[in-house]
Parts: sequence; C-alpha cells; structure tokens
Amino acid sequence: MRLFSSPSEVGGASGDAAWLGAMLDFEGALAGALADVGLADAATAEEVARACASLRAEGAEDDLDLDALGAGTARDGTPVPALLAHLRPRLSDEARAILHRGATSQDVVDTAAMLVAKRALVPLLVDLEAAAEAAAGLADRHRADLAAGRTLLQHASPITFGLRAANWLGGLDDAAARLSAVRDERLALQLGGAVGTLAALGEDGLAVAAALAARLDLPAPPVPWQSNRSRPVELAAALGQATGAAGKVGADVVLLAQTEVGEVAEGGGGGGSSTLPQKRNPVAAVSAVAAARRAPGLVATMLAAMPGEQERAAGAWQAEAATLDELLGLAGAAVGAIRRCLEGLEVFPARMRENLDLTDGLMMSESLASALGAKLGRAQAQELAGDAARRAAAAGAGAGAAASGASLARSAAESPEIVAALGAAGIEAALDPAAYLGQTEAIIDNALSAHRARTAGARS
Amino acid sequence: MRLFSSPSEVGGASGDAAWLGAMLDFEGALAGALADVGLADAATAEEVARACASLRAEGAEDDLDLDALGAGTARDGTPVPALLAHLRPRLSDEARAILHRGATSQDVVDTAAMLVAKRALVPLLVDLEAAAEAAAGLADRHRADLAAGRTLLQHASPITFGLRAANWLGGLDDAAARLSAVRDERLALQLGGAVGTLAALGEDGLAVAAALAARLDLPAPPVPWQSNRSRPVELAAALGQATGAAGKVGADVVLLAQTEVGEVAEGGGGGGSSTLPQKRNPVAAVSAVAAARRAPGLVATMLAAMPGEQERAAGAWQAEAATLDELLGLAGAAVGAIRRCLEGLEVFPARMRENLDLTDGLMMSESLASALGAKLGRAQAQELAGDAARRAAAAGAGAGAAASGASLARSAAESPEIVAALGAAGIEAALDPAAYLGQTEAIIDNALSAHRARTAGARS
Amino acid sequence: MRLFSSPSEVGGASGDAAWLGAMLDFEGALAGALADVGLADAATAEEVARACASLRAEGAEDDLDLDALGAGTARDGTPVPALLAHLRPRLSDEARAILHRGATSQDVVDTAAMLVAKRALVPLLVDLEAAAEAAAGLADRHRADLAAGRTLLQHASPITFGLRAANWLGGLDDAAARLSAVRDERLALQLGGAVGTLAALGEDGLAVAAALAARLDLPAPPVPWQSNRSRPVELAAALGQATGAAGKVGADVVLLAQTEVGEVAEGGGGGGSSTLPQKRNPVAAVSAVAAARRAPGLVATMLAAMPGEQERAAGAWQAEAATLDELLGLAGAAVGAIRRCLEGLEVFPARMRENLDLTDGLMMSESLASALGAKLGRAQAQELAGDAARRAAAAGAGAGAAASGASLARSAAESPEIVAALGAAGIEAALDPAAYLGQTEAIIDNALSAHRARTAGARS
Amino acid sequence: MRLFSSPSEVGGASGDAAWLGAMLDFEGALAGALADVGLADAATAEEVARACASLRAEGAEDDLDLDALGAGTARDGTPVPALLAHLRPRLSDEARAILHRGATSQDVVDTAAMLVAKRALVPLLVDLEAAAEAAAGLADRHRADLAAGRTLLQHASPITFGLRAANWLGGLDDAAARLSAVRDERLALQLGGAVGTLAALGEDGLAVAAALAARLDLPAPPVPWQSNRSRPVELAAALGQATGAAGKVGADVVLLAQTEVGEVAEGGGGGGSSTLPQKRNPVAAVSAVAAARRAPGLVATMLAAMPGEQERAAGAWQAEAATLDELLGLAGAAVGAIRRCLEGLEVFPARMRENLDLTDGLMMSESLASALGAKLGRAQAQELAGDAARRAAAAGAGAGAAASGASLARSAAESPEIVAALGAAGIEAALDPAAYLGQTEAIIDNALSAHRARTAGARS
Repeated sequence: MRLFSSPSEVGGASGDAAWLGAMLDFEGALAGALADVGLADAATAEEVARACASLRAEGAEDDLDLDALGAGTARDGTPVPALLAHLRPRLSDEARAILHRGATSQDVVDTAAMLVAKRALVPLLVDLEAAAEAAAGLADRHRADLAAGRTLLQHASPITFGLRAANWLGGLDDAAARLSAVRDERLALQLGGAVGTLAALGEDGLAVAAALAARLDLPAPPVPWQSNRSRPVELAAALGQATGAAGKVGADVVLLAQTEVGEVAEGGGGGGSSTLPQKRNPVAAVSAVAAARRAPGLVATMLAAMPGEQERAAGAWQAEAATLDELLGLAGAAVGAIRRCLEGLEVFPARMRENLDLTDGLMMSESLASALGAKLGRAQAQELAGDAARRAAAAGAGAGAAASGASLARSAAESPEIVAALGAAGIEAALDPAAYLGQTEAIIDNALSAHRARTAGARS
Repeated sequence: MRLFSSPSEVGGASGDAAWLGAMLDFEGALAGALADVGLADAATAEEVARACASLRAEGAEDDLDLDALGAGTARDGTPVPALLAHLRPRLSDEARAILHRGATSQDVVDTAAMLVAKRALVPLLVDLEAAAEAAAGLADRHRADLAAGRTLLQHASPITFGLRAANWLGGLDDAAARLSAVRDERLALQLGGAVGTLAALGEDGLAVAAALAARLDLPAPPVPWQSNRSRPVELAAALGQATGAAGKVGADVVLLAQTEVGEVAEGGGGGGSSTLPQKRNPVAAVSAVAAARRAPGLVATMLAAMPGEQERAAGAWQAEAATLDELLGLAGAAVGAIRRCLEGLEVFPARMRENLDLTDGLMMSESLASALGAKLGRAQAQELAGDAARRAAAAGAGAGAAASGASLARSAAESPEIVAALGAAGIEAALDPAAYLGQTEAIIDNALSAHRARTAGARS
Repeated sequence: MRLFSSPSEVGGASGDAAWLGAMLDFEGALAGALADVGLADAATAEEVARACASLRAEGAEDDLDLDALGAGTARDGTPVPALLAHLRPRLSDEARAILHRGATSQDVVDTAAMLVAKRALVPLLVDLEAAAEAAAGLADRHRADLAAGRTLLQHASPITFGLRAANWLGGLDDAAARLSAVRDERLALQLGGAVGTLAALGEDGLAVAAALAARLDLPAPPVPWQSNRSRPVELAAALGQATGAAGKVGADVVLLAQTEVGEVAEGGGGGGSSTLPQKRNPVAAVSAVAAARRAPGLVATMLAAMPGEQERAAGAWQAEAATLDELLGLAGAAVGAIRRCLEGLEVFPARMRENLDLTDGLMMSESLASALGAKLGRAQAQELAGDAARRAAAAGAGAGAAASGASLARSAAESPEIVAALGAAGIEAALDPAAYLGQTEAIIDNALSAHRARTAGARS
Repeated sequence: MRLFSSPSEVGGASGDAAWLGAMLDFEGALAGALADVGLADAATAEEVARACASLRAEGAEDDLDLDALGAGTARDGTPVPALLAHLRPRLSDEARAILHRGATSQDVVDTAAMLVAKRALVPLLVDLEAAAEAAAGLADRHRADLAAGRTLLQHASPITFGLRAANWLGGLDDAAARLSAVRDERLALQLGGAVGTLAALGEDGLAVAAALAARLDLPAPPVPWQSNRSRPVELAAALGQATGAAGKVGADVVLLAQTEVGEVAEGGGGGGSSTLPQKRNPVAAVSAVAAARRAPGLVATMLAAMPGEQERAAGAWQAEAATLDELLGLAGAAVGAIRRCLEGLEVFPARMRENLDLTDGLMMSESLASALGAKLGRAQAQELAGDAARRAAAAGAGAGAAASGASLARSAAESPEIVAALGAAGIEAALDPAAYLGQTEAIIDNALSAHRARTAGARS
C-alpha cells in the first residue's frame, strides 16, 4: 500500500510498474536473443523490442493496463498471456511469430523477479552502505562516550556509545555482505520453456538463454531453475536479514530516544503528531521496526513455496512474486529509514553520563568484585561486593532517579574488609566506569577494520 | 500488487482507495458526532462532512494524492497529518476548528481498518456462502457417486464424491461461522484520543464515541482498544482460516483435476497457457492455493504485533494496516476463486469409478477382513485378508493402471479358508465398494443439516 | 526443550507423556464404546482398558518407550502402529480382536490432541483468569495514580496506572473469552476410520463415536473432521492470542521496569544474573515476551496445514501435533509467567509522578490548547499553545531529567494572550495532569464491569 | 517431541542433552583458556574441566537435572545460573573462583548454540551430500527415460525422469553449498561478558576469547555478537532452505507415488497403515514434506528476534535457542528422510511411458506447432496445431485413461494443411516425445558437472 508506506527509491524500483517493465524487457530482449542465434531476423527482433519499450513507457503511465492484466491473471493464472495479447496487435505478422518464442509464462515472471531485484538492490545497497558508513562514523566519534550498557533493559555495566554503534555496524555489514553475495552469485536468468527442457527452441535453447542473459545483463545459469526455488529463497532471506539489521538499529534508537532516557534524538525534529505539539517521534526508527515486524512472515512464505509440485507448482510458485515484491519494498523502506536515522542522529553524551550515574555506582559492582578478587580470592570478593551492592540498593530504593550521593562508594567505604583490601584510592578506581571498559576500544577498532575490509573488497 | 492478483469485489473494497475513503468517512462523521453532543454546530459539522466526502470522491480518482500521503507517512509515521493538511485549506476557520477534534491518528487508522473490513466482508461473505452452497449442492447430488478415498495420496477405502464435498462444506461453514462472528462481535469503533483517555473531549468523550459509532454504523466498545490488539488479531485469524478453507478445496481440486486422475475439471475451459494449446489449468483452484500459502505469514505478523509498547506501539501497530489489507485481499481472492471453482465444477463420476477399480479390488481388503472377522475372529480374519491382498498386489505389480481382472477377488477365491467362511456370494458382497461406505449417507446429511442450521441462524 | 523452558502445570499437561497418555485413553475408551453398542463384550473391553491404563502408567516413567515409538513414527509415519504393537502382547486374543477396531491412526492422534488441549487448558485458563483478576485489581487500586501516557515511547498525555492495567485486563479478558469459547465449542472427538466413513464399524459407526465421545467427555461432532482442520486452527489461533495478550503485558512491564523508568518491579527480587549482583531482571515478563515471539510462527504453521490432500494429508497433517503441543506449552508458560508477574508486581506511584513531571509540563500542551480553545477558537488556541510548548522545549533542551521549574507554566505565563484568556488560575488548572484525564475513570469502570460480566457468565 | 519425530543422528546431536553438553564444554574450556593466558593455574583449570566433563556424562543420563535447570530458567531467565549452582559444590574454592569467569549467561548459550549446530551439521551434511549423490545417480541413470512433464499438475510436455532428478539435485546442491558456507564462515565463538566489553577480564578479554575459541575449535570473531544476531539468522535460513529442498523432493515423490500415477515407490515397502493391509505409504517423503511445513515459521521467529533491545534483548534472544534446536532437528529429519527416500527409490519407467501416452499425443501439440512453424510461419502453425489439439481433446473427452488410439496423430492426419506441410513422416516425427526433449541431455550434464565441481571443491 502506498498510503502506509514511505516512498523510497527502492519503492520506485519495485511494485507493479517495475515488474511490468521487467516483463516487457524480457520479451524485447528475447526477440533480440532469437536474432542473435539466427532464429529471427534482426529487423523483426528490433520491431518486437521497440513495441515492448513503447508499451513499457505507456504502461508506467496507464494504470488501467494493470487492471486488465490483473483480469488476465484471474483468467490464466499469470498476467503473461494478457500481456502478450496487449502486444500482438502492435506487431506485424513476422514479429508476432517470434514474440515470446520458446518461453513460458514462468520464464517471464521469474526473470522479471530477478531484474526487479537487481534494479531495486542498487538503491537499497547504496542506502545500506550509507547506513553502515554512518554507524561507523558514530562508532568512531563516540568511542569514548560512556553510557550505561543495558541487558533486559536493566543497567548492567558501562559501555561507550561508540561500542553500541559498532554493534549496529556489525549487523549492517553482515547484511550488506550477504545481500551483495546474493546479488553477485544468485541472481540469474530463467529460461526453460514449458517444462524446463527448452524444447520449443530445439537444439538452440541454451544458446538463446546465453544470448538473452547477455542482453539482460544477468548470468545464464547452468540449469533452468523453474522447479528449484533456492535463488528466490536466498534473496528473500537476505532481504529479511537486512530488514532485521535495520530493525535492530531502529529498536535501539526508539529506546534511547525515550523521554526518560533521552540519549539520542532523530534529526530534523522527528515526526509530528496530529494532536500533540510537543511530540518529537523517532519516525524513521519506528518505520524500520515496523518493516522488521512484517518481513519474517514474508520470508516464511518464500520458504514455504519451495516444495512446489513437479515442473511448475500449483499455488506455491504463484505465491512468490507479490511476496518478493513486498519484501523488496520493506527492506528498501527499512534500510532507507535507518540511513536517514543514523545520518541525522543527534547524540547526547552528557545525558548518557547522567543515566550512567542514575544508580549511584551500582553498575560498578562487577568491577568492585573484580578488584577485590585480585586481592582476596573470587568467592570472598563476590560476597563482599554483593553485600555492598545490596546495601547500596536498599538505601537507594524509592529514592528514584534523583537520588544523590554515590551509594556504592559509600557502602563500600563502610565495609572494613573492602577498605582493608583496596584502600580509598582502590575503591575509587574500582568504581570508575571509564576504567571498566575492557576491550571496548579494540572491539570498535576490529569492527571498523572489518567494515573497511569489506567495503574495500566490495569496491575492488 | 494488481499485476499478480485477480481483481475481485473484495479487492475493490480494500486497498489504498478504500482506506483513504474510510479515513475520510471517520473525519466527516466525527464532525457530525461533535455536533450531536453539542460540541460543534450542525452547519459547521456539515461543512466538514461535505469536504471529506468531496475529497473522498476526488481521492479515488487522483492517485497522486496517495504519493503525497505516503510522503506524509514517511515524515510523520502515519498518513493522517498529511490528510488533515489536505483537508484544512478546503475548510472555513470554524470547520477547521472542529476537524479531527478529540481524535488521534491511530483512532483514524484503526477505525478505518474496521470500516474497510466491514465493507470488504460483505462481498467476501457473499462469496463464502455461495461457495458453501455450491459445496452443499455437490455433496447432495453426488452423495452416491463412488470414488477412491485417498490417504497420503494412496488409495485407501471407498468414499463418495458427495462425502468429499461435504467435508469441503464443513471447512467453508466453519470459516463462515467464525468470520460472521468476528464481524458481528469484534468490529468496533476506536476513539481514544492521544493516550486512550479521550481527554481532549473532556467529559464528553464517551458520548462523542457513541455518536460517532452510530454514524459509522459500528459498535461503540466499552473500552478504547488502542493498546489491546485482540480485535484485529481475531479478524486476521478468521481471514486466515477462510483462506485456508478455500485453499483446502483448491488443493483437492488441483489433485482431482490431474491428467492421471481426471475426476473433476474447472468449468469454462480452465486457464490458458502461453505456449501449450491443449492445457486446461485449474486456475481458480490454484489461485486459492496460492492465497492459502501467503495468508499464514500475514496472520503471524498480526499476532506478532500484539505486544506493542504502552499506549501506542513503536513499530508493531504500524505493521498492521498494510498486513490486514493484504489479508482481506487474499481471503477475498481465495474465497471468490473457490466460489467460481465450485459453482462451475465439472464432475466425472465415471472416471471416479474407473480410478476406484484401478487396483483390482485391493482397496476392499479392509472390507474383506471385516466380513471374515464376523465369522472367524479378527486376528485370523486380518491374516487371511492381508495374505490375499499381498498376493493380489504381487500379481498386479507392474501391471499398471490397465491391469485387467479383479485380483483381490481372484486371490480371495483361491483361499480355501476365505471361501469356506464367506462363500462366493459373501466374497462378492465383501468386495463391493458400494456396500462398504459405512455412515457416508448419515454424515453427508449431518453436514447438510449443520449447514442449513447455520445459514438459517445467520439469516434470522 | 526443557532446558530453556519454565516448567509449568501446562507444561506437565502437554508434552510426549501427555500425548501418549491421551492416545492410550483413546484406545481404552474405544474398547468400552464398542462394548456400549454391543460390538464387544464388556469383560474384553475392560481388559483392553486395563492394559491401556497400565501401559499409560508405565509409559510416563519409561522414556525408552518414546524412542521406540519415535522409531515407529519413522517407519509408519505415525506412532500409532508401534503403540498398538506395544499393546498387543499384553492382550488376550479376544482383546486383541477389538483393540483399535474401527479407528485409524489419525483418529487416535487427533482425539489425543483434543484431550491434551482440554487438559492443558484447565491450568492455562486458571492462570489466565488469575492474571486477569490481578490486572483488574491493579486497575482498581491504581485508578487515580497519575502516570505518563507514552506513544512511540515518547511522553504524550497523562493517564493513570490503573488505566494501563485496565487495558492489559482487556487483552487478557478477550483472550480468556476466546479460549473458553474454543474449549466449549470447538474441542471434539475425531473418529472417522480410514477415510472418514467409519466403514469398518458398519452401521454402528456414529453410535460408537457417540459412546466414545461420552467416555472421553468430549463432544461428538456431527461430521468427522479428518480433512477439515478448522478445529485445531481455531485452537491454535486462540492460544496465539492468549500468548500475545500475555506478551503485551510483559512488554509493558519490561519497559516500566527499566532502570531509567522504574515505575514497577517484579516481586520477589526478580531474576538473578550469572555475573551482576545488582541486577533485578523482570524475568517473568521477559519469559512472556519470548513466548509471544515464538507463537506467531507456530500459528502460521497450523494455518498452512489446512490445505492438506484429500482424506488425509501427506505432510500437512503430520506437521500439526508437535506444533500444537509447542503452542500449548508456550501459551501456558506465557500466561503462567504473567500471572506471577502481575500478582507480585511492585508498583511505584511516586516514581510515576516524578516521570510525569520530567518534561516540565510539556505533556500538558494539548490540555492548554483545549482550555484556550474554549475561549479563543481552536486555531488560535493551537497556535498559542504550540508556541508556548516550543519555547518551553527549547528552554529545557539539554537540561535533562533533573531540569527544575515548570517550563510550560513559565512560558504560558510569559504569553500575554494566554494570560488574558485564562488568567493565572486558569493556566494552573489547564496544566494540572489530574484534571486532564478525560474519561479515565469511566473507562476503567467499563473494563472492570466487562470483566465481571464475563467471569460471571463463565461461571454460571 | 520424540513421539512424533523420526529419531535421527541429527536428533541425537541436538536436543536438551546436546545443549547441556555444549554448555558444559564451554565452561570447561573457558577455565582452560583462562589458564592459557595466565589468569588461572593449569591444575585448577583442569579440575573445572574434569567437573564439567563428569557432569556432562551424568547429565546425559539423568533427566531430572533438566527439570532442575528448567526451574532455574523460570527463576533466572536462563539455565546458566542453575547449571553453575550444580557445578559449584563439586569444586574446590580455587576452582570455584575461576568457574565462568569473565563470561555471562548469554555467552554460554550462544556458544553452545554454535557448538550444537557444528556437531549436528556433521551428520546433516553427510545425509545431504548422500541425498544429492542419490539424486545425481537417478539423473544419470534415467536421463533418457521419458516421462510426462507436468505444470499445475497437468500434462504439459515430455521430459525425462533424469531431468526431474537433476532438478532435485540442483535444490539439494544449492542447500548443501549454502549450509556448508554458513558452517565454514558464520559459526563462531561468542564471548563478550555482561555487555560485550569483556571488562571482567581486563586487558585479556580478547586473548581469552582467542584461547577459548581454539579449545572449542570454533573461529574467534573480531567482534562479539551478543546484539548482532546475523549468525544465528543465517544458520536458520540455511537450515530452512535445506528443509525446503528436501521437502521439494518429498512433494514430488508423494505425487509420483500416487496410486493413479505409480511412477515411483519408496523402497522397503513403504510405511504401514494401522488398518489397511494393502497400503504402501511414501513415509519418508511425507516426513520431509511435514518438516518443510514447519521450518518456515521457525525461520520467521529467528528473523523476528533480530531487533532485540540494546546489549541483551528482553524476550527476542530468549526465543532463539529452542527455535534453533527445533530447526536443526527438523532439517536433520527432512534431509535424512530424503536420503533414505532417494537411495531406495523404486523407479518405474514403463509406467512413466504409459502415463505419457495417456492423452493420446495431446502433450505433443507444442511440438506439432513448432514443426509446422518451420514451414508455415508461427501464426498459422499455432492455429493449425491448436485446432488439431482441440479436435483431439474433444474426441478424447470422457474416454478417460483407457482411451485407445493416438488422437492427436489422427486429428493431424485429418488436416489437409498439416499433411501438406509435414507429410505423414513429418507428423510422426513431430509427435515423437523422444524427439522433443530440447536440451534435456545438456541440462542434466550441466547439473551433474555443477554437482561434481561443488563436491570436489568441498572436499579439497
């Protein structure tokens, strides 16, 4: 639906018009391929190609065609016979004789799926790379900005905002790597004829396929894949993964932008409300999360369509095209939104630091236990640190966000054993979040190196 | 997508234009409701209603609006602010002052979902009832037409084609009952304001809701449901069930229409092929199967959207509208296709009988064992019948479909114990499929009675 | 898996042992039903019933049987032939002759599914009703405790915690109503024999079914449902809905229990961490959320299994039993966890009030606009309130959670037009959250009334 | 559930005991890794490793532990604290001090997931390669065995059974390639500590991770992946794809084994029925189809778990382990079943030929049109061939499977234009299915070459 979708470049590269265009590209290029191998003369092939290109231009403008083609789908199970019926009156007898020769409806739709995917992946991967680049920038710039690390949404131990961004980068990089691999290795022409033998083209079938593939700039697969749905399934899974990686960023941004947390905000003022003037909604993040809610069920549909019947399924295959189109659109919307979100993200390190201090040092209890462990053995250390944490927590209960004083520091100072083991300076050191970041720097560096290595490889 | 969808009346009652229309109906009726309770004067309310109706008429024709509204969705997270921005310039200051008063975007979209569903369910339930009626007719007319009952697609025991149709009827009836119950009990207005308190309407909130519900001919729920997604989930599950019930019929028709089985064919010649002149594809059945492949993932999305965050979810709710719309379209397409399929179904009882005889009576081995059991005890009976069946199967192996002779009859006649127990007449009786139908008649009658009782109840 | 699942009473009522027990109950009761209609003598039937009861007791203790039965599933496609092979050596010839008579494997498994569901629904509905009761208690006790209403996790307008609990109650009530309806109306015996004709029981099939249903305390359906999967699908959807309703509560509790929000905590100290002594994880809420992530895919599987082939599906039906069992376990775990969560929930109204004040009154801008609207017309009112809100927000930016002063009050006081329209007292009244709760009280009362009406109806 | 699952080697390598074992392997190896980098002494590390190994051996036998650990999951959200509580009493103070040091529960469970997957993939890939090998053998042996190619389950054009097997091979090869790539590139250790910084290990965190990875024979990732779920998602998608590829073979075998088709049968007599002695069910194929019905919903759950909250999700992550385990078991069951199915498949070429002839040559109408096209131009050719086909079909209607005579041959011979164009010999040639196989041979060769290239690459 357009009403509930963000328009995006991927959206423009998918949808009915894009599929119709790709189907016409197939028919036009097929005529050329027949000429390439000597099964048609060049002028006739050119006539078909011109008619396809001309209908393609009209079709994009003329929505009524879509309803006519949809009616054809109701009648024939695919829109291809209706599309051919549209084309034929525009052709000479000679051209009509070579139109669609050797192909079956599924060849048209499957190859169109690959063309649409290939074209939609261009802006999608641009957005995905830009989103990863933005995450890399955040990881680098905020590598030392302390923040509360949260597990199950409870404060756990300190991290930096840069580390969180590095983790986002990891998911986006993985998705880009997988989606690029699918684009490079798994997109391919489909040309098999009625049952995958290319029989209507006699001995020239594979040669026509090779010529057609070259004209459409798609690889020619060694084996037609009308009954082996691995290619669309791998594409769908990679799109689902990209949507999920964007959704992960979105979910975190929504949480960090909560009024009570306030550690980030979407740039540009966020989204408006129809009633509340003060609202500043993290609209791009929400849009990525929404897409990530919808993609899994669609990937499931693609997987469920694998066990189709024999040479062409009676229902499974027919479930694919609209599902794949929806997935392309959703992945495009999610990735585009996350790019906008990350590129414009406002980051508030001071607020992160405030939140880190909310629990009066309680988050440092693991650190305190570690420091004690080096002196006293781990069992006693954990007991002492645990006691101190519990006393601090009890004192702070009900005090809320505004509780003043460093409670864990105080309860540690009240423990003779802790003081004896660490001294005042040792306690202070153990409670310093900046000193308890472990390998945060190295991990951020690793993530950035992996990102640069991948994009360098992708470029070369 | 329209390209890969059969146009249907439900399709016309869903989709972008239908939602846009329902959203405008909401805004127009809300103005009226404000007037009803004295929060606006009648003339101003009428002005708003007229503007909504007028934009509704234009909107249906003017697709550009959809892109503008989609851009609004990208900016604000929902199309409602953009829709209001479209409306405002058409209104006087007074009318502008009451437009959308007391409502929030989610109220508009959720109520629109209910209106769209209510309207789409009208043709959908007409088709579903007609499909059930057609199945009932088949059950009655073919109640005595013998056919092979198949489990795991292997011949098992005899049934009649009427019994199979009665089982289809059961699924369609259950779906109609559930969908009607959802329509009658679970569709409802949503009006809660920003956070479900109706605070912007002061003490009049529930009164406005009641008036608005009356104007939209939807029930007014006791509690606004912005954060309780049970209603859309129950609707989605019922649509999924209806699609599945149609898909079940479709799956059986596809199998019965196989070239090798040939027991039914879709009327009107079936669907054409782009290359094979002789093909007669069960297109309607395939279309129902395809829809039934797609619906489960969409129902899963609706369920996954239940645990949204607090007063309005950040992503879960936003995943619902397009998903529900798709489900309405798919259920409509599936049910419409199965209606066409069943109403036009050509049934070939002679071919059913031929298929029944394909295995030379082997399908009657359970019957033979039963007959022997009455004389000899079940253990010996099963052993004798099993031996006879195995000998018959061995003789028939490789003989294929055209094997002549009634092998189980022959191998039974060759067994002295069987002959002694049953005699020639007893063997013949035991091997008569028409005599081994158990409670087929009673079950068909029960299914027809249940159908008539339900539709009588639905009508009254 | 037991390793990653909370043990629950529903868990005990589902799983391998429960299904095995139910299958043996079926075979035992079938023998009794045969005797009831005169197809077996009472003593022999009693022998079968005793053998089934005895194997049932052993089976629960003897896990090796499960592997043997699983091997039978590999060989035969269902565990029933292997189970019968286990039973036969324990029976006399007479008893063996009536064992399983008239039934097919699917009858055993389908009826076992219904028995398992019926038994598992007892503790599940107890937990669900208790959870709803706990939510009702919270709604009533906290009906006036002010809290921030949040949309997209941003502060929106004030609510009370009681209203939020009332919305939880609504979801739990809807789920309980639906699940109870499925239990009362959709559970049923399945007995159809090999192909749904009950042929092996001659004219007595439906009478045996009636007697068997009575013995198993399940309704006898008018039509066997081996090829109409509406019943398991409706059960699955209701279980998915219940899991989702529990997951909604869990999601909110997780968010409200965030360190930065702190409005609730799970009682009993929450869950421990393997490393962090200070952590207090909302474990029960998380467990409900986790279940709600898993249920949708399983409901989709049940829907996808509807279009099975003819009289018994080749794969679709076989996907149901383990899926349904998983759903029962997940719904049981989710609902049990939410019951524990709600019954022990610690609620911190003071913290709610603190959070409400975090944005210095900004949340009251809609209220201010409303108050102005009554004097100045809505357009000017919205403009003035919006300006004041924007000035307040700009002043507060960066001030974080600890910002002092009531900024919207201040910026309103600085606006001559607002002061002129409302006066100081009017401004104060407009900015009082307690005065801007709309119909909160009435809605809570409606939710509680609906709850009481439902449970009264359920009881009577 | 074991009751409804085929036991398999993958089943043995997954499930509770396998996860418990892998978790203990993690804790044992972690102690060793601490010693490797000097954070523990070797003897103490050895003590921990021995205790883990010893509990591992007991755990496999002692199911009660599972319930105790499950109770721990209910209390703590993961079974890890309970497992550690089991271990501690078996350890000296020194050993207790290093147990689990530096790790968090999620590290244990995530690494266990990878270990379980790695181990389960060994038998799974053995079965998958064997299934592919069997398909390759069928493709080669039956490359010239003519069969009806079927689209939408209608006869379309001739193929050979070898081509169908080559298409199965393609799906199995693609699945093996993808699953092997995931095994080689995407399995990895997870060690991040509480929030992914490894802070509790100070500066040694990544060194400990490297040592631990070496000990567990898993790659050490550059970045801990606690909040980037790409690895489990890619694994799940590849398992879903493998299940789908097996399900595709299963679906075809079920259809080819239909009583009316009879072109293949499962070896070893197939599965038994609890009531019907003559049944020979394609049990292995059905089991693969059933698994392929269940896997998509589980893959969807894994994708839906990607957008978890911050450093550890509150529900999403907790949904993964049981889901992944189920997927491993299902993929293992499906692939194992298809291996058995293909290795033992009985193929009946004579029956294929009989079925090919069922429609009296109608399937050759595309061929006839092609032959005519070479002489007359395609438009006239299609018209003439279409007319002949329609006349033949009309004559054959109702004649059923046993219709005698070559109708398309006869109707072609009755057409003066066709006779003039092709002559009797030309007609006969055009109607010979063996002469209308297009590039069947070349495609089979391509599929076999691709298979050999892949397995050679996999081996080297």
